[in-house]
Amino acid sequence: MRALVIGAGGFVGRHLVAHLMAEGDEVYGGVQVAGSYSDPSREVVIDITQAESVANAVRVTKPEVVYHLAGIAFVPEAEEDFERTLAVNVSGTAHVVHQCAIADRNISLVYVSSAEVYGAVASSDLPIRETTPVHPTNNYSLSKRMAELIVERYGRTKSLRCSIARPFNHIGPGQDKRFVSASFALQLARIAHGQAPAVMRVGNLEARRDFSEVRDIVRGYRLLSRTSGGIFNLGSGRARAVQEVLDTLLSIAGVNVSIEPDPSRLRGPETPELYGSYEAIREACGWHPEISFERSLEDVYRYWYDQVAAGRV
Amino acid sequence: MRALVIGAGGFVGRHLVAHLMAEGDEVYGGVQVAGSYSDPSREVVIDITQAESVANAVRVTKPEVVYHLAGIAFVPEAEEDFERTLAVNVSGTAHVVHQCAIADRNISLVYVSSAEVYGAVASSDLPIRETTPVHPTNNYSLSKRMAELIVERYGRTKSLRCSIARPFNHIGPGQDKRFVSASFALQLARIAHGQAPAVMRVGNLEARRDFSEVRDIVRGYRLLSRTSGGIFNLGSGRARAVQEVLDTLLSIAGVNVSIEPDPSRLRGPETPELYGSYEAIREACGWHPEISFERSLEDVYRYWYDQVAAGRV
Repeated sequence: MRALVIGAGGFVGRHLVAHLMAEGDEVYGGVQVAGSYSDPSREVVIDITQAESVANAVRVTKPEVVYHLAGIAFVPEAEEDFERTLAVNVSGTAHVVHQCAIADRNISLVYVSSAEVYGAVASSDLPIRETTPVHPTNNYSLSKRMAELIVERYGRTKSLRCSIARPFNHIGPGQDKRFVSASFALQLARIAHGQAPAVMRVGNLEARRDFSEVRDIVRGYRLLSRTSGGIFNLGSGRARAVQEVLDTLLSIAGVNVSIEPDPSRLRGPETPELYGSYEAIREACGWHPEISFERSLEDVYRYWYDQVAAGRV
Repeated sequence: MRALVIGAGGFVGRHLVAHLMAEGDEVYGGVQVAGSYSDPSREVVIDITQAESVANAVRVTKPEVVYHLAGIAFVPEAEEDFERTLAVNVSGTAHVVHQCAIADRNISLVYVSSAEVYGAVASSDLPIRETTPVHPTNNYSLSKRMAELIVERYGRTKSLRCSIARPFNHIGPGQDKRFVSASFALQLARIAHGQAPAVMRVGNLEARRDFSEVRDIVRGYRLLSRTSGGIFNLGSGRARAVQEVLDTLLSIAGVNVSIEPDPSRLRGPETPELYGSYEAIREACGWHPEISFERSLEDVYRYWYDQVAAGRV
């Protein structure tokens, strides 16, 4: 399949590209900054806030499948600038969807939203299903729900084949170090290399979340592109405490550390527990998670250990 | 009550201001263009796309109640420019809600959305209730639903008292002539004055809609400002064919005309019938429609008859 990955330079985008290539797809990388895609002959620079830039990318790459992963993905970053978040996450998605629709070549679009759109869900309503009402409560989740509305509209009125993915919290090698498992693993790797004192700074350890392996998730995106569309949760199907992420990484790293609370890492009103059901995507295309939590965190730790060793962080 | 009406220069805004004044409220008029509010000493010019402009308006008027009606309200206009619609209807609402929340004076906010957010509803799901799933299918209704998401967020997380009104199709004197009843009445008034040949140009006459009197609707907005908030339909509670609007106006005008279809007035995919239940607002504050369909259309016709007589159209 001829695929265009918009957001190919990001954490999830790089994993998706690797998976698509391994499956034999012809993969074009849409990136924000020239030179950030592994195959320069198939790189296309896209400013998704500009309709003409998106139109050009769709024109030159002639994709059969478009994966749209580009956007502001870090909650506090979106919180700081709503206008920018609207321009990138909402208008940007409008441009992608519109250009796919008018290309009139039966493109299958996979839009990567987020399980953040559900907001706080009462424990009696767990696991979260696609039919669970959405209550976005921050700029990031608002923008993702707004973008979903646009995708749904095109799916309904313009006969564009659209899948909306709602992945839960990601774990996996290469994630931005502002996210919790990457932050822990990087701190531990620095301690293991003797580059930092044996003190971990941590936020809320009690929150229980659905941690999902990024390589499982991107495998799901490719499968979704072959369905007739719809909205799909992607997750591990169970909740684990952030404490469990920490304990598992501590055991993998094998270092002795003391734990200190870091007020700057404590997000606002936290929901005690969130996890989703992946029944819908399992039924639609047989997807289920394959990589274990422990195996994923081992890879995360090794990634950061190597990054520190190479002096890249 | 000290009220700020944002969008006081528009069709609904002018009716709301008149009602609030009649009820003894102290009414500040937020307008886009200087000089378009009836009381110059209480006029404040607001560019809702600019946060600082909204902040200034809230600061100087110190409202207890804010009615937010400003925005792009004509479906084809929104369809032409999605970016502008986002800036005005979505970012604009974000600015209003945010400034009301940070003013920290227990402001009651009434956000005027639209029953257009429901999109096409199957006849088996009529009447439309507030729990009916929303399926916005054009730029206008998308932008209204996006703005609702922002208002809902503040209602949930920032303890701002917010009511979201979802009015159905309006009728009433002073409406923009691009809307159906105004268009018919103006054409008939011109014919009655001998200023046009006795030919009416009409769009789809079969669509059945919930036509609601604007003075009933604005009365509902004031009542909503005194509730604890929520989402509320406002409508007549029944569907009437556009044909019935035409027939009633023809009978009021008492002129003989021939009817010609006008392709430019035929909107895209039409839903045969739409109407809502106003049970929720009736239960919350006793509201129900009071002005009859016939009386409203008489006032609409007289308004346009006088406009034509005075040479204002």
